[in-house]
Parts: sequence; structure tokens; C-alpha cells
Amino acid sequence: MKALVYGGPGKKSWAEVPSPQILHPTDAIVRVDTTTICGTDLHILKGDVPAVQVGRILGHEGVGTIIEVGSSVDSLSVGDRVIISCIKSCAHCANCKVGLYSHCLGDEGRSGIGWVFGHLIDGTQAEFVRVPYAENSLHKLPPGVSDEEAVMLSDILPTGFEIGVVNGRIKPGDVVAVIGAGPVGLAAIATAGLYGAGTIIAIDTDRNRLDQARHFGATHSVVSGSPDWKRSVLDLTDGAGVDVAIEAVGLPETFTMAIDVVRPGGSVANVGVHGKPVELHLEELWIQNITISTGLVNTNTTPMLLKLVAQRKIPAGKLATHRFRFDQFLDAYDTFSRAAETKALKVVISRGDLAPR
Amino acid sequence: MKALVYGGPGKKSWAEVPSPQILHPTDAIVRVDTTTICGTDLHILKGDVPAVQVGRILGHEGVGTIIEVGSSVDSLSVGDRVIISCIKSCAHCANCKVGLYSHCLGDEGRSGIGWVFGHLIDGTQAEFVRVPYAENSLHKLPPGVSDEEAVMLSDILPTGFEIGVVNGRIKPGDVVAVIGAGPVGLAAIATAGLYGAGTIIAIDTDRNRLDQARHFGATHSVVSGSPDWKRSVLDLTDGAGVDVAIEAVGLPETFTMAIDVVRPGGSVANVGVHGKPVELHLEELWIQNITISTGLVNTNTTPMLLKLVAQRKIPAGKLATHRFRFDQFLDAYDTFSRAAETKALKVVISRGDLAPR
Repeated sequence: MKALVYGGPGKKSWAEVPSPQILHPTDAIVRVDTTTICGTDLHILKGDVPAVQVGRILGHEGVGTIIEVGSSVDSLSVGDRVIISCIKSCAHCANCKVGLYSHCLGDEGRSGIGWVFGHLIDGTQAEFVRVPYAENSLHKLPPGVSDEEAVMLSDILPTGFEIGVVNGRIKPGDVVAVIGAGPVGLAAIATAGLYGAGTIIAIDTDRNRLDQARHFGATHSVVSGSPDWKRSVLDLTDGAGVDVAIEAVGLPETFTMAIDVVRPGGSVANVGVHGKPVELHLEELWIQNITISTGLVNTNTTPMLLKLVAQRKIPAGKLATHRFRFDQFLDAYDTFSRAAETKALKVVISRGDLAPR
Repeated sequence: MKALVYGGPGKKSWAEVPSPQILHPTDAIVRVDTTTICGTDLHILKGDVPAVQVGRILGHEGVGTIIEVGSSVDSLSVGDRVIISCIKSCAHCANCKVGLYSHCLGDEGRSGIGWVFGHLIDGTQAEFVRVPYAENSLHKLPPGVSDEEAVMLSDILPTGFEIGVVNGRIKPGDVVAVIGAGPVGLAAIATAGLYGAGTIIAIDTDRNRLDQARHFGATHSVVSGSPDWKRSVLDLTDGAGVDVAIEAVGLPETFTMAIDVVRPGGSVANVGVHGKPVELHLEELWIQNITISTGLVNTNTTPMLLKLVAQRKIPAGKLATHRFRFDQFLDAYDTFSRAAETKALKVVISRGDLAPR
């Protein structure tokens, strides 16, 4: 089969590789019909994630069709259309039993981490993929949800919702600032209303993304980098700051922006993937009654979000801005890596017989 | 009257000062029967809290008897025995209405901060004190609760409980580490069981305090500073870390200790008063699903804690280790400031006619 193979920092290829095989009775083999590229894949290609070995098939998002199941898989069948969750979960370990799938102790790749696809085991940017713990790591698709919509449920919609909205403890009427209007930030914006956010402020340097944010539910937008950005945000509150600040970039500067605009008693929900430490001003914050949360998505809300997508309550499909066939995979990477210029949100890559031309 | 007056960094005196007067209809004047000294007072005396002006009467903890009430005070009367909460709350502002008394916007000293006694207005280390917003800032004492027990409810018991136990979201069966077994750490230890903590590990450099911690409910103790302290803590868990780490010291090193021992999915509740920033390793923590909370006490749990003290469910009285009369105030400070040597937890200072000799 063909797959997108990591060749070391800066190197990738759309290459011929062996097809995956069932290794455990709980596995399934899925034909990947639609996949996409995540900012994390770009980090890996820069060499920022040393655990990824040369030869690894990248990708942790996908929608496909089951072609084979292991001997202990009962609730899934060949032919089922499924979402491949970016997090594998064994369902049996201490962490899975409390919904902390992100830290699943099941021994795939490495114990204690749920994100294994395109990281510690081969991923979804391929014609076929082996999915461990298939009954928990896959979600059957109802009719009426397209591949393009469904692939947003592999990672970005549950990440924005769980790590931004839920961890941020948004309450009805809250003023919420989302710093970074990339795909995950937009996912937080698109789901903040589920918990009743009253004012949703998108903050980004990119005016195109701020315009996009309005289509996902942002009520206001603020261009960051402008000298008065903070004043503009505070003017949308009672003056004391936002109730919840969601950081969806992953830089020390943007984390500090989140801390700077949150009110006493408020929450900072960190969603961004960080590469450096930040200076936390506890000498000021100890008295501020704020809560800071971090996290890798658990995907334990995926069934709920899938229902909402099926009910047309979340505009998942709008996140797809560019479409490619599998044999154009390198073009898709090129378009996604120049997102500021190409205005790409999510690039969707599909099998030739599915891809729109 | 006599009061403990701040004279600038390093200077204090037990001096004659004018008695307080009613300034607003919502005030009360309380005769202070029993007070105590907080670590924060020592910080002030070092000059660490520049908002405290020379001439300020220190102290934010006290139990007393009402001698005068303002014209709009209905629910309190002259002669009532009361706990003076360390936090004033107007009850009417946006923050008070949601229980965030710590950031009461009522205009006493400064808008937006609930801690004003011995900070922005005159405090409780005096024969008499003016209490603003008396109906909310005072709690009537039921019979059967001694002054020594009650004075622990001014600050340290609600602080340990709200900012440690509640913010840490302790659940039944949790493994909880409390870093720093001073008075506030002991208050967290003494109240962690209210939410069902199963294992309570006291961590301190001072073996005397660790011994004391056992009397307040600690099930285990670990001497910090020893090379294997972290291993000793992890050995009391399933190996993944504690569910909740409560930081009750206020140093970068102890905050980092809390981060180091918490499990994925766990909470770090910062209670310590910090004077310096800390380096937060978001490049490791973004994926760890941890929650960090900070806060000044709201004292909105004081009525509940008072009931528990009255029911003998919290050993508040054990926190008092040394007793002084008002005319021995400077001796009390001396004993408290050499706590490692004197083994002082809380020093209690009482009017001459109340003080045990």
C-alpha cells in the first residue's frame, strides 16, 4: 500500500510500504477513506517529537471502512464506516476506567499515553491502518454524516471542546477569549456555545482567520499584536477580564496573553502544544483565584459531539477548506504548511474514488 | 487603646493609638478578645507587602465581642461573640454574589480585594477593631466553641480547606500530598478527610511538624530534602503520582515539588503566598492533563467549618501551641518568628482577663 512516511527531520515521502496486519485479537484493519493533517504532524516533521522514528507512517485522524477485525471484536463488523479516534483506549486500565483515555495504560507503543497513531505506531495517512483496541478507539458513523465532517471528530473537535471548553469550565453567559483561531481554536469557538458562552472573542494575528471565526460562532474578534489588544478584550467584559481564556497556539507569549486577560476567579485552559517553558508569575497569581488546566484530548466526548454534528448543531464541514487525493499528499502538506498564505484551515485528503475533483 | 503597629520594614511596636470609630452604617466595632499571628504578618514586617503603610495596625485574625454597631446592622447586636473573618465582603458586588469574597469590590481600602485587615485598613492585633460590612464579615459564635478554636476560623482553616482541599477537587479515596506542614498545611490536612481523602501525605523539612501532622489526620509523612523524597511519595501511590498535591509553602522549589509528584489527570492546589515567579514546564505539562489552581480564601465555607468545629470534627484547638497576653505581644511575635526552634504552630494572644497563665 501507499503511505506518508516520515524520513527524519524535514523529510517525508508518499511511499510503498507493507500493508498492516492484525496483531492482537482486539485490533481492526481500517481502509482509510479520508484523512487530514494536523499541526502536530508539522511539529514532527521539524524534528520536535523525537519519539517518532524514521519510517513511521504519520497521521492520527481519519475516517474509513473496516476490512478486517480481530477474533475478540464483537461490536464492529467488516464494512462498518468508522471514525478513527486520535486516542487509543484499552477501556480496561485505571485511567480508561475514569475516562482519562489520553493516558491509557494499554501497552501499544508505550504505556501511559493514548496518542500513539503517527507517533509510536503507524498512523492514518495511509491506505490502510491497524487500529488497536478497535471497539473503543473507533466510532461507528451514522448515516448523514460525511467523511469530511467526521474526520474533524478524530481530534480537533473533541480537543477544542474537552481541553478548551470543558476544562475551562465555561458557564452560561460567560465571556470567553480564544487565543489562536486555527482549527483547534475554531473547534473551541464552535463548541463554547454548548455550555452557554455569551460572548466569544476570537484573538489572532491573522485577519482571515478572525473572519472565519465569525462563521464558527465568535461574537467578536481582536487582532493580537496591536498595542491596544488587551484593552479591546477588556472592553468586552465588565473591565475585570474574561471568565475563560483558551490558549490554542502553544507559545509562551500566547499563554501569557491568556493569563493577562483572565479575571479573578477565572480559568485559563491551555490547549496549545508547547515546546518551551513559560514564566508563571505566581507572585501575582497566588491571590488571583485562577485555574490553569492542560491536557491531551481524551475523546470521551466524541459520541456526544458526533450526535451534535449529525444534528447539524456543529458546523464541522466548514473546517475543510482544501481537498486532495491520496496521490496528491505532498501537495496537501505544502498547502497546509503555508496556511497563512493559502488560507487553509483543514486540508482533507481522500481516496481517489471518493475525492471531489 | 493599645495595638501592634507597623513601623516600616523590621519595625513594630505595641503602642497607644486612637480607638476605632464607626465610619459607615454597615460597620461594627469589635473588642478583640483573642487574636493570632500569621506568616503573612512576618512577610509584611520584612517589607514584602509594600501596600502596607507605616502606622498600620497589623493582623487579620480575631475573635471578639461586639461593642457597637452601625445604623444599618440588623442581624448582629452589642454583646455578640463573633469570629472576624480575614476577608471583608460587601455581599452586594458582582464577585460577592458568586461567593468570590476574596475579590470583593466593596470600597474599603481598595476595590477588588477582600483582604483588607492589617493590609489596607487597620487590623485585629489591637484591643478594638472596626469591621466593615459587619453582617457578612463577622460570624456569630455558638456556645461551646472556645476563642482558641474560633480564631483558627478567621483564616487558616478556610484557607487550607477552600484553596487546598476544594480547589484541589479531592475525591473519596484520593492520595493527597500536602507540601508544608505549617498551620495552613495542617488546616488542609485536617480538612482533606471531609472530601474523603484516603491517603494524606505530609511533606516537610521539619520532623516536628511532620509529627504534629499525624495528629491532624496525615496518614504518612515524608521528609523533604532527602534524596529519595519523591520515590517515597510515589511508593504511596500506584506509581503514577498523587491525585492532588497541595502547595502550602510559597517557594518556587516547593511549587515544583507539587508539579513533580502529581499524576496525569491530577490537581496542584497552590495555597502558598509566593514572592517570585516559577518556571512552568508547559513543554512537558501540556500533555499531562493537570489542573493548577491559585487563590486567596473566600471564607464562604466558614459557616460550615464552624459547625464542624462545634461538632468536634475538626481539631481546631490543637493548632494553638503557645499563649500570650496582649501586653506580651512582642514576645508572641518572637516565639512565632522562631517557629522551627520554638515548635510554635499558632501563637494565641488574648486580653489579660481571658489569657490562661
